[in-house]
Amino acid sequence: MVFKIGLLGLGTVGSGTAEIIYNPQGRHPLLNDIAIHKIGVNSLTKKRNIELPGDVLTTDLESIVTDPEIDIIIELIGGLEPARTLILKAIASGKHIVTANKAVIARYGSEIFAAAKEAKVYVLLEAAVGGGIPIVEPLKQSLGANRIENIIGIINGTTNYILTEMTEKGSDFGEVLEEAQRLGYAEADPTADIEGYDAADKISILASLAFDRKVKREDVYSEGITNITASDIDYADKLGFVIKLLAIAQKTLEGNEETLQLRVHPTLVTTSHPLANVNGVFNAILVEGQPLGQVMFYGPGAGSGPTASAVVADTLNIVGVLQSNGKGQTLDPLLSSAPQTQADISPIEDVNSRFYTRFLCADVPGVIGHLGTAFGDYGVSLASVVQIGFQGEFAEIVVVTHHVREGNFRSAIEEIRSLNAIQDIPSIIRVL
Amino acid sequence: MVFKIGLLGLGTVGSGTAEIIYNPQGRHPLLNDIAIHKIGVNSLTKKRNIELPGDVLTTDLESIVTDPEIDIIIELIGGLEPARTLILKAIASGKHIVTANKAVIARYGSEIFAAAKEAKVYVLLEAAVGGGIPIVEPLKQSLGANRIENIIGIINGTTNYILTEMTEKGSDFGEVLEEAQRLGYAEADPTADIEGYDAADKISILASLAFDRKVKREDVYSEGITNITASDIDYADKLGFVIKLLAIAQKTLEGNEETLQLRVHPTLVTTSHPLANVNGVFNAILVEGQPLGQVMFYGPGAGSGPTASAVVADTLNIVGVLQSNGKGQTLDPLLSSAPQTQADISPIEDVNSRFYTRFLCADVPGVIGHLGTAFGDYGVSLASVVQIGFQGEFAEIVVVTHHVREGNFRSAIEEIRSLNAIQDIPSIIRVL
Repeated sequence: MVFKIGLLGLGTVGSGTAEIIYNPQGRHPLLNDIAIHKIGVNSLTKKRNIELPGDVLTTDLESIVTDPEIDIIIELIGGLEPARTLILKAIASGKHIVTANKAVIARYGSEIFAAAKEAKVYVLLEAAVGGGIPIVEPLKQSLGANRIENIIGIINGTTNYILTEMTEKGSDFGEVLEEAQRLGYAEADPTADIEGYDAADKISILASLAFDRKVKREDVYSEGITNITASDIDYADKLGFVIKLLAIAQKTLEGNEETLQLRVHPTLVTTSHPLANVNGVFNAILVEGQPLGQVMFYGPGAGSGPTASAVVADTLNIVGVLQSNGKGQTLDPLLSSAPQTQADISPIEDVNSRFYTRFLCADVPGVIGHLGTAFGDYGVSLASVVQIGFQGEFAEIVVVTHHVREGNFRSAIEEIRSLNAIQDIPSIIRVL
Repeated sequence: MVFKIGLLGLGTVGSGTAEIIYNPQGRHPLLNDIAIHKIGVNSLTKKRNIELPGDVLTTDLESIVTDPEIDIIIELIGGLEPARTLILKAIASGKHIVTANKAVIARYGSEIFAAAKEAKVYVLLEAAVGGGIPIVEPLKQSLGANRIENIIGIINGTTNYILTEMTEKGSDFGEVLEEAQRLGYAEADPTADIEGYDAADKISILASLAFDRKVKREDVYSEGITNITASDIDYADKLGFVIKLLAIAQKTLEGNEETLQLRVHPTLVTTSHPLANVNGVFNAILVEGQPLGQVMFYGPGAGSGPTASAVVADTLNIVGVLQSNGKGQTLDPLLSSAPQTQADISPIEDVNSRFYTRFLCADVPGVIGHLGTAFGDYGVSLASVVQIGFQGEFAEIVVVTHHVREGNFRSAIEEIRSLNAIQDIPSIIRVL
């Protein structure tokens, strides 16, 4: 039986997806059982890189999601609207959904999954996180035996490219960003990437799957890489670290109280850590659970081919299940997912971290004592204090703390900022 | 509905599996729908680390695989017999199979998969390769859109531990092997690991899945690590390489002629390669395909907890599918797998590789000319020739070739061996 696809969007990923479906030879034989029925686009006359049957394109996307002939909708238009409305309409019309849209899933996932559960359809989203890396389906299908403890990911290729270039060439953020924009690795408006919002979308999706909880996107703390300087990368290197933008989801249990920490921020990662060697536009996601320990998934986090690979994999999964059980039956509880319970997310002040902090100060010997006292007053214990150089008349001191509640650390920093000898605190970066 | 498990074997992995199933809290809720009905063991009186219901143990394994109450058999006794016979009997009795037994699947996979297809049952084997790393299911469920080109894996923890220790401590093979045996990382009879046979079992399984071909286990070329010396590791390091035991499956297409290369051997891997940093008992598998590019799966390749995690994941997958479609229906074509076509495997002589070769020779200036001529006569082009030191009166020369057909390289080596100035050729190692 051939299953009919309605494809929404024919941009980079849409074209890659169509390319695979139209050229099934050498791929999984199940591809012969799917056919593109309609493709929804903005313009019928735009020149395309791919040869298409004459009548497959339409600008009426709503007609696709309600077309009774179509079994599966692949949503690749991105953004919040009309993507959300089209997905919900498709679900209401009994279509299964494959989407690469992290923004809409991070914000409206609960609504979409609930609707899908009611309509007994699947909503699969492998391509929304990590591009071509299998991570969403393995989380659902391969790690269920474990008590997942944390997920730590490099899941934004743009920022990882920028940080890698800064590290390898000693360049500053601004110039590397411009170069990334020239090369197409960063968008004209790079805000969502460089401020960590894109990574925050993705970690909220992963956390929701891994911990089976509804996650409010606005509860994810995010801090971007715009303040990272070549100096900090250099100092981090001297201390045995690289700087990466990490997205972290961590479960903490106190008695029966389960809370989640969800955060995106630049992080010092020790060079021997598996994530430290993930460079350029590559992504990697480390999952830790019991009894498994740590596993890591590594690969291309973006791009037409890799993302299309994930989109088509989801489509094949749906076709495989439909072929084995027909329509209108019970959903496979591993492949479907609809968390019922709202996650309890810790405010960032309650999260325990280590901190790298760089101070510019006037008078070194006296200041180190003051720093130590102020930190001590708030229960912040120091792992190392190093005078690392001079900037003009000011000494640069780098402090790395032991684990401390962020609220306490911030209070200590406020007090230190008021000390006469402290000229500036140019960098505060968390340490993994 | 609760699905009943018959567990064969209660050793390291069996105990880990029972531990997870008896303690479902905090894991996937689907675990509440499975129950251990019987456990087959050798001895009823042996002391166990795990508390068991009184009547669950039996020494009559055959009664388990034919027990009409049981839905899924988890085979963890290992070895060829009685594992093969029990698996086939279980299939004939309509049971689904989960197994961690790479030896039996590598040798009798075709027979077992054919029987399973006929009986409409699943045979899942995530735990047979890479311990806790999700690799088998992602190959089947997440990469089907791709034309898989090659798989390169570090899939034997014992040899990776030995090579890592040799690299980090400069020790020789023999002493590290003894230490590994003391630590339980190598068995009393380490042959299957150190000769590459275990890795050959595993790569034949992965190749069969990735390329949808029946693979004869005896067609896999394997060469172990017993001849690797501390000197070679040191010279490799100087040239920018580490030495890893790689298992490689590669598809070559000439016109419509598709052949597979399947081989296990020590390999020089450039230090910037993702596999170069996989150390100790960790495993990693790199899969390359179009349009995906390269993805890597990394994690603990053995051990009770990780392997049990994979065993239970497979069990949950079967339960998920059974819950969604009931019994006796069509199999999910992604989750099931039964290659129909025999693979055409290239003999090792026809494989193209680069080679690192170390020569001990009497008279350096003359010899380099002779080496170059002899290699040239067989079409072997050299990437570098380095006199790397002396051993007594003999000069040590290391040659790295460009890609060359192995048969040609061997012919050149035979000729060079007959040269008067050549005292010995202590090492020949392929280069990735």
